[in-house]
Amino acid sequence: MTGQIIEPPALEAGTLRVIPIGGLGEVGRNMTVFEIDGKLLVIDCGVLFPEENQPGVDLILPDFSPIQDRLDDIVGVVLTHGHEDHIGAVPYLLRLKADIPLIGSGLTLALVEAKLKEHRIKPYTLTVREGDVERLGPFELQFIAVNHSIPDALAVAVRTSAGLVLATGDFKMDQLPLDGRLTDLRAFARLGEEGVDLFLCDSTNADVPGFTPLERSIGPVLDSVIAKAPRRVIVASFSSHVHRVQQVLDAAAANGRRVALLGRSMVRNMTIAADLGYLTVPDDVLIDYRKAHDIPDDKIVFMSTGSQGEPMAVLSRMANLDHAIEPGPGDTVILASSLIPGNENAVYRVIDGLTKLGANVVHKANAKVHVSGHAAAGELLYCYNILKPKNVLPVHGEFRHLSANAKLAVDTGVPRENTILAEDGTVVDLRDGVARVVGQLELGYVYVDGSTVGEITDADLKDRRILGEEGFISIICVVEAQTGRLVVGPEIHARGFAEDDAVFDAVKPKIAAALAEAASNGVRDSHALSQTVRRTVGRWVNTSYRRRPMIVPLVIEA
Amino acid sequence: MTGQIIEPPALEAGTLRVIPIGGLGEVGRNMTVFEIDGKLLVIDCGVLFPEENQPGVDLILPDFSPIQDRLDDIVGVVLTHGHEDHIGAVPYLLRLKADIPLIGSGLTLALVEAKLKEHRIKPYTLTVREGDVERLGPFELQFIAVNHSIPDALAVAVRTSAGLVLATGDFKMDQLPLDGRLTDLRAFARLGEEGVDLFLCDSTNADVPGFTPLERSIGPVLDSVIAKAPRRVIVASFSSHVHRVQQVLDAAAANGRRVALLGRSMVRNMTIAADLGYLTVPDDVLIDYRKAHDIPDDKIVFMSTGSQGEPMAVLSRMANLDHAIEPGPGDTVILASSLIPGNENAVYRVIDGLTKLGANVVHKANAKVHVSGHAAAGELLYCYNILKPKNVLPVHGEFRHLSANAKLAVDTGVPRENTILAEDGTVVDLRDGVARVVGQLELGYVYVDGSTVGEITDADLKDRRILGEEGFISIICVVEAQTGRLVVGPEIHARGFAEDDAVFDAVKPKIAAALAEAASNGVRDSHALSQTVRRTVGRWVNTSYRRRPMIVPLVIEA
Repeated sequence: MTGQIIEPPALEAGTLRVIPIGGLGEVGRNMTVFEIDGKLLVIDCGVLFPEENQPGVDLILPDFSPIQDRLDDIVGVVLTHGHEDHIGAVPYLLRLKADIPLIGSGLTLALVEAKLKEHRIKPYTLTVREGDVERLGPFELQFIAVNHSIPDALAVAVRTSAGLVLATGDFKMDQLPLDGRLTDLRAFARLGEEGVDLFLCDSTNADVPGFTPLERSIGPVLDSVIAKAPRRVIVASFSSHVHRVQQVLDAAAANGRRVALLGRSMVRNMTIAADLGYLTVPDDVLIDYRKAHDIPDDKIVFMSTGSQGEPMAVLSRMANLDHAIEPGPGDTVILASSLIPGNENAVYRVIDGLTKLGANVVHKANAKVHVSGHAAAGELLYCYNILKPKNVLPVHGEFRHLSANAKLAVDTGVPRENTILAEDGTVVDLRDGVARVVGQLELGYVYVDGSTVGEITDADLKDRRILGEEGFISIICVVEAQTGRLVVGPEIHARGFAEDDAVFDAVKPKIAAALAEAASNGVRDSHALSQTVRRTVGRWVNTSYRRRPMIVPLVIEA
Repeated sequence: MTGQIIEPPALEAGTLRVIPIGGLGEVGRNMTVFEIDGKLLVIDCGVLFPEENQPGVDLILPDFSPIQDRLDDIVGVVLTHGHEDHIGAVPYLLRLKADIPLIGSGLTLALVEAKLKEHRIKPYTLTVREGDVERLGPFELQFIAVNHSIPDALAVAVRTSAGLVLATGDFKMDQLPLDGRLTDLRAFARLGEEGVDLFLCDSTNADVPGFTPLERSIGPVLDSVIAKAPRRVIVASFSSHVHRVQQVLDAAAANGRRVALLGRSMVRNMTIAADLGYLTVPDDVLIDYRKAHDIPDDKIVFMSTGSQGEPMAVLSRMANLDHAIEPGPGDTVILASSLIPGNENAVYRVIDGLTKLGANVVHKANAKVHVSGHAAAGELLYCYNILKPKNVLPVHGEFRHLSANAKLAVDTGVPRENTILAEDGTVVDLRDGVARVVGQLELGYVYVDGSTVGEITDADLKDRRILGEEGFISIICVVEAQTGRLVVGPEIHARGFAEDDAVFDAVKPKIAAALAEAASNGVRDSHALSQTVRRTVGRWVNTSYRRRPMIVPLVIEA
């Protein structure tokens, strides 16, 4: 955990190497690489959404550098479930090699295929379901049902000559799931009896005490809010949360209301889910939103995107009266969703906007309209006790989550030295039931910005942060090449700094004087003259305004 | 609540005008102006801290425009308590007129004076305490003890010929406060019997059901965490939270530990609080932090700033190993503080950093180490029922808080039409027991950035947001004045856009061609030529990169 780069040793035959290349130290871009006998298996390939200190970035990908020269060795990519943080980077991997096989459940692959279609990629896929066993080169894969906030999630047991690994993907252990599909603890128990050599376990809620409440506990709350709503009801949730939407459809039907889906991803995902039988649409409930104006206000529910306050999503646009459906007094808005850290201000802006328009806003802070999709500490203890794994590698989470998960492992009897607190790029070798850290790769963030991938660097983001905080001052001077004499300028322009460029009249004579002095000292190099300008302006602005905008000097020879 | 500007009528003699100019629709910059018979009274004068969409801004002030031409009419500024969101803008008001009298409790004025000293202003002050009655021109002020997360807070009743107004300031109703100083419900009851014409009530926690727990419920938790801590303990909280620090001092003393204060504001505020008798320092507990290395690890507690993840405060610097005290395995860090929306990522970064260093981090998500300073819904119901106010103006909060507070008023029998949902700049007139909205002023945000006040505009912030998200591309062309012929350039520089300026080789011929075409069409105006450059580069970058950086063209005639 030192962050120090350690070159791993060459991999011996019969040893399994595990490299988490994303998802450790962050909530997102989950991706783990397994290698044995010259072949690679990948589990998950997700994206990470940027934080406020990564301005302008659209997505963050795992750093593919450990595998990008070895694409032909990849036997397949197992996708545990259809969330963006597990499948979102697949298009970028398949851009490197389009025929890497994708393995996953029916819903997961349907969601990936819809995404790849937008990138004009048609993948090779292998659909699996719980109980299936598939062999891919040196890897035998066994798929196990797990319960999560999207249907059809799978854990995967990986058998190799080096031992048995179990990777949970994201999961929880709802004991009364809507679709009856439990996390298969009997299968976990059988694996435990067989002997799990390495357990890769979801850490997202490891620092949350107790147990995640039942998804179905939300149903009666939705039902009662909708029953009491005097006019329209608008519900927002994640667009892949099939069971949440199911409960909204059921509550609407029970109250004699129709439901219109709003938002591109909501319509796309629910169409897929209904077609494949994961969403059961009550008769005559769904209606196209363009026909919703014919329905009386107390007979309609809108099911929309935008529960995280995303500025371009339906709910934000409604709050800004920038959508065909304009909320007003008597309308009820339900945010049946989590509040992801970092989104609070955006979400509260939407809540305030809707409240101001007269809507009654129901959200997780004032009603039980959301439960998490991840196992809390209590559930994880069950897992550890049923599996009794020899070695544990907590995955999926910030360091505090991984650390809390490791503590649960130790509490249930896993020896501390067999509990591996790793980070992205940590190289773990498994042999003879012993898992040990043998190296640390240097991995970076790969930023997607517009149509570019990996062009934006951390240096660019640092520049953006300075520009965003302070703005810039650009100074253009044209000097005579022979004499260094200033012939045009200084022309000074600033953005994000102050209203009136007249403030720069004070510094122009200082620049001219500094350039004249440099010229008289024989300085002719335009880079050196630029530095003179930078120092002069930087000192002036810091003294006069106590600010540090970016200073962009340009001395042109004419 | 339409945001529409409505010119208020001229104020008639004997009518009281109330204008909240800050704190409505935001948590911060609380300030309300009262006017009757040509004289003005101000209650509170606070700052607002910027959100992520106000980059680079240091502070946001109330817009003083309704009073800045009438400074001589101000009879005084009542400061209800010593928090920044109630006193932070005082230096900026006193810069306009230094001898406006400040009225407040002993602790409040001591904190204001310390702040004003940094601005080299020595104010005129009037120290008051609960029970005191003071007459300032047409206003009779009666001060009432209230309980809050800083000692010595006061509510103020304002009697005028137009009626009786009660303003709570920030408050809660802890029934077993550490200092025994209760919110004086007997005084509230007497005012209720006299008849409260207008009630300005703290809304911060109006949407939180139930009751705020006792401050003293934290003591045993601190005690138990400190008792079990194997090595050093570091506690972070707000630097003005005297009672929280008191409990830390007591818990440290009970466990035989010394306490070192860390952070400039912590040291300054606690010195003031101890000098004035608000903080009781157990014998021989405090120690200078420079001498703390002589104390064994299990005998020391550091009391520090930085509980909101502020990058320059002690706790963040410790997490980055950029402080003399470097946390490590066995150390315990307690964040005895709230988590203000918007600060989550910063706080979690600090928690992760400390966890990574091996420290055990205790915070409000995993232990009861914080209670709020504001009355929750249950407490507010008591207030309304004791006061039975004729009219209510919820203050201090985002719109959802004001709206929740208004609902509580209505629930206790205040007629809906007498419950005023206002925003900053709403003009409310009170006469004969009737309060009505009579106007809406246009007020803005006044940004403090570096040493400038009000220079940065919303347009500058929009530029900063674009620069911060996308960076900029600057293009400099020198053209011959007579012919429009390009003689130097295009020189292209970009920051925050992409690593390599070589990408611009693709667009340079396009720029030259566009300028040549413009010149051949007789265009000579450098502004028009700049626009040509802007369009050419903008179109290119949008098509090639699907991005929208700021384009900064400059065409210079030589």
